[in-house]
Amino acid sequence: MSTEQLPEWLGQRAALTPGRLAVLAADGQWSYRELDERAEGAAQQLRALGVQPGDRVALLAENSAAYAALVHAIPRAGGVLVPLNLRLTISELATQLRARRVRLLIHSQRETARAWAVAAQGGQPGCAGLEALVAQRVPSPGVRPVELARVHSIIATSGTTGQPKGVLLTVGNLTWSAVGSVLALGVGPSDRWLACLPFFHIGGLAILVRAALAGLPVVIHARFDPAAVNAALDEQQVSLLSVVATMLERLLAARGERPFPASLRCVLLGGGPVPPALLETCARRAVPVVQTYGLTEAASQVTTLLPEEAGRTGGSAGKPLFPTEVRIVDAHGAPLPAGTLGEIVVRGPTVSPGYDGEPPPERPGGWLRTGDLGWLDDEGYLYVSDRRDDLIVSGGENISPAEVEAVIRQHPAVAEVAVVGVRDPVWGQQVVAVVVPASGQSLQADAILGHCRARLAGYKVPRRVVVQAELPRTASGKVQRGQLRTWLEGEAVPPGESGRLSS
Amino acid sequence: MSTEQLPEWLGQRAALTPGRLAVLAADGQWSYRELDERAEGAAQQLRALGVQPGDRVALLAENSAAYAALVHAIPRAGGVLVPLNLRLTISELATQLRARRVRLLIHSQRETARAWAVAAQGGQPGCAGLEALVAQRVPSPGVRPVELARVHSIIATSGTTGQPKGVLLTVGNLTWSAVGSVLALGVGPSDRWLACLPFFHIGGLAILVRAALAGLPVVIHARFDPAAVNAALDEQQVSLLSVVATMLERLLAARGERPFPASLRCVLLGGGPVPPALLETCARRAVPVVQTYGLTEAASQVTTLLPEEAGRTGGSAGKPLFPTEVRIVDAHGAPLPAGTLGEIVVRGPTVSPGYDGEPPPERPGGWLRTGDLGWLDDEGYLYVSDRRDDLIVSGGENISPAEVEAVIRQHPAVAEVAVVGVRDPVWGQQVVAVVVPASGQSLQADAILGHCRARLAGYKVPRRVVVQAELPRTASGKVQRGQLRTWLEGEAVPPGESGRLSS
Repeated sequence: MSTEQLPEWLGQRAALTPGRLAVLAADGQWSYRELDERAEGAAQQLRALGVQPGDRVALLAENSAAYAALVHAIPRAGGVLVPLNLRLTISELATQLRARRVRLLIHSQRETARAWAVAAQGGQPGCAGLEALVAQRVPSPGVRPVELARVHSIIATSGTTGQPKGVLLTVGNLTWSAVGSVLALGVGPSDRWLACLPFFHIGGLAILVRAALAGLPVVIHARFDPAAVNAALDEQQVSLLSVVATMLERLLAARGERPFPASLRCVLLGGGPVPPALLETCARRAVPVVQTYGLTEAASQVTTLLPEEAGRTGGSAGKPLFPTEVRIVDAHGAPLPAGTLGEIVVRGPTVSPGYDGEPPPERPGGWLRTGDLGWLDDEGYLYVSDRRDDLIVSGGENISPAEVEAVIRQHPAVAEVAVVGVRDPVWGQQVVAVVVPASGQSLQADAILGHCRARLAGYKVPRRVVVQAELPRTASGKVQRGQLRTWLEGEAVPPGESGRLSS
Repeated sequence: MSTEQLPEWLGQRAALTPGRLAVLAADGQWSYRELDERAEGAAQQLRALGVQPGDRVALLAENSAAYAALVHAIPRAGGVLVPLNLRLTISELATQLRARRVRLLIHSQRETARAWAVAAQGGQPGCAGLEALVAQRVPSPGVRPVELARVHSIIATSGTTGQPKGVLLTVGNLTWSAVGSVLALGVGPSDRWLACLPFFHIGGLAILVRAALAGLPVVIHARFDPAAVNAALDEQQVSLLSVVATMLERLLAARGERPFPASLRCVLLGGGPVPPALLETCARRAVPVVQTYGLTEAASQVTTLLPEEAGRTGGSAGKPLFPTEVRIVDAHGAPLPAGTLGEIVVRGPTVSPGYDGEPPPERPGGWLRTGDLGWLDDEGYLYVSDRRDDLIVSGGENISPAEVEAVIRQHPAVAEVAVVGVRDPVWGQQVVAVVVPASGQSLQADAILGHCRARLAGYKVPRRVVVQAELPRTASGKVQRGQLRTWLEGEAVPPGESGRLSS
């Protein structure tokens, strides 16, 4: 455990470059001085509300300048930030409050009614309105040091299966991640980062830390709206944009063939496997896409393509950030050679110390097992294929859902597809494909099966093809495979029959 | 003490961007892959030569690509880098070797004869030629982690009194300093840094670390030659240049009125107080000068102006690097308000753990006392007034008056001596010795100069020797150096002429 200290991000940034723009949002266009002073006002109010060192303070709000201020103000008041997923139900949120032992729930105006209901069921923490907390500008008393080992945030893993865990992220984890991102992407003060990923996910939150370190403005969108993002790209000199694949697809669709402005130098594409067709579209339209692989447990980015590699085909998620090491290992943790599929493991100062309420995880040699499967090519570029939990084992054969999905996606009548392994009394698991037809297309399961049989080994061909109107996704856009599996195992829905999945 | 680890700089950089250019020098134009492979070759040879973990390995050489490789190879082989000042005499170098307990002395071809003489007097470490060590390219076995707390280098500082001390600089010190510099200057892979400061000073060495972190090329000059630097600026797309004031003056003089190319975006000006006339010239000629304040004990830069503040008048050395805090304190360590002169103190992860062979220094609150005087303005910009009370800075070299005094005092005809730095239009300061003859002795300035030339590096030899009947002293008997300086700067007393100093 490090006892090393750093000046607190926002206080130092405001001391160094008070006049630089920090946030551009519907609720405020603030310099770093103003962001710092509103954070100081909020921190003092939090203390007045009884926040003690180590208290967990939850935040239920859409992205805003005020949210950005609280990301700094809560730790400044001594608290630990617990950002809550807006898409959860009241009872799911209440479960989170109790699991994290939340003492105070801060909510936006818009979330007031839900916040009160959540608090009532969630251990009855105090409630406070976000907007009022940042209403006062209070001059900050100066830069204070913070221990790198201190827990800054507890972030729920989007966890495609089961109860979300609370990932402890320290000041050091977030700082090193930001340093690595800045070095990889060559981020400087002339950049502007557009944040339309929610701040309650690490992919959104990390933007605020990078911005504070590099002293650049964040263009904050309350939520993802393709038209609003396109307008911001055209009008606000945005140079960096973080998105997941489905967001980028919607952005491209909304944009038509209109080219992106030259000011947009890097589109950071994360959040899971990317359909090859999307990469091809981006290459054709000269969108400067760089794929990235990350996870909450490593404070966001683990690997990334570089801006100079934008448009590199083949679907690689790039190489590690400077502070980070990546290996591919077998089931026993032994390193595998280039080109071999195995589990991705990660080491370095961005790796979380563990999960809230659990003993420190065992990590032989310091390696975090990600549960993701992938391989490295001869040059060290990472390719991510599947979650380990998603790997289908049927009749002793390992089947990669991503590989089967890539084949099915080539079918012209298919818009989206998810392939999962469903319990089978004979084979252990059987391959099932859930497909969403392209708009206006009718889709027959048999056509898909024929398509697969012509292109895949027999054991990889789905036993069932289920046609659906949409796929269940997490807030960050990941397909909820666990939910699909549960539904397919529990329901006797005949292949080809359409039904609404609960989500 | 942190147990945190990072991937080794060069190994990681070579893994991430093997094709990027690393060094351009007379002895090689190497990509990061080639630099890494030559460093690996050198590291393997160092181990074969018997270098064990913790062994001190000294380096006596002018700047070169090979020197850059050894900066990485020596720690990779388990050793600690001890860079030696080329301007020292053989006996001074031998003293360093013994003080640092050097096990192996690496020298350039050009320094062979001196190195052997130094080794013979300096505890007889082994000797090895620099050029041969980097002759072989050996593929590196992969990225290895390094502890941030590990000592990377021991850099001599002249200090204010006597024997140079060895400043311990850890991997963490150097990494955080490079991170801070990259963040402040917005350094990215499209930059090119020209290194004409010697690598045996922290100002030169730090360039190599920043380059490895940011993945940019260093244009390496064996020594400072104004014509060669001007040519490189014109022809080699250099964007960043580190100099001290006398170098910049000579550069401007050699350049005439020819403007600098637009590719040069930042001239980092450090190494002590800057003559106001130089700053005015730079402002008039639109040289993008940013002043910086630093010291070996904080791994180089402590504060810096930002590129956007280039040409800011008033002589400020800017604000702290992101990981660093700066305060002005009184004699008891209590913080002083803005505008008040006091001692500069520094805190943060760039601060050295201490000096070789000494117990860890006491640093209440973690603050390093620099011994330098300055003040902060209302906005937090630092102004450095005296480099140190007594320390002489001549042509960017720190000269300890006490060291020169000790040599002069050995002369049998000398009773007392005081050595001070007197303002000099070319060198910043010049060394002047004021001597009091031993009773009944007659003393010639030339005899003292000859005595010094035989025992001290040329830059330490006084430019003037003034013979006096007595030295001005305080009631408690301390020599009043400030008064001596004032007198020497104000009076046109010819060398050797005796006169009564008012006291």
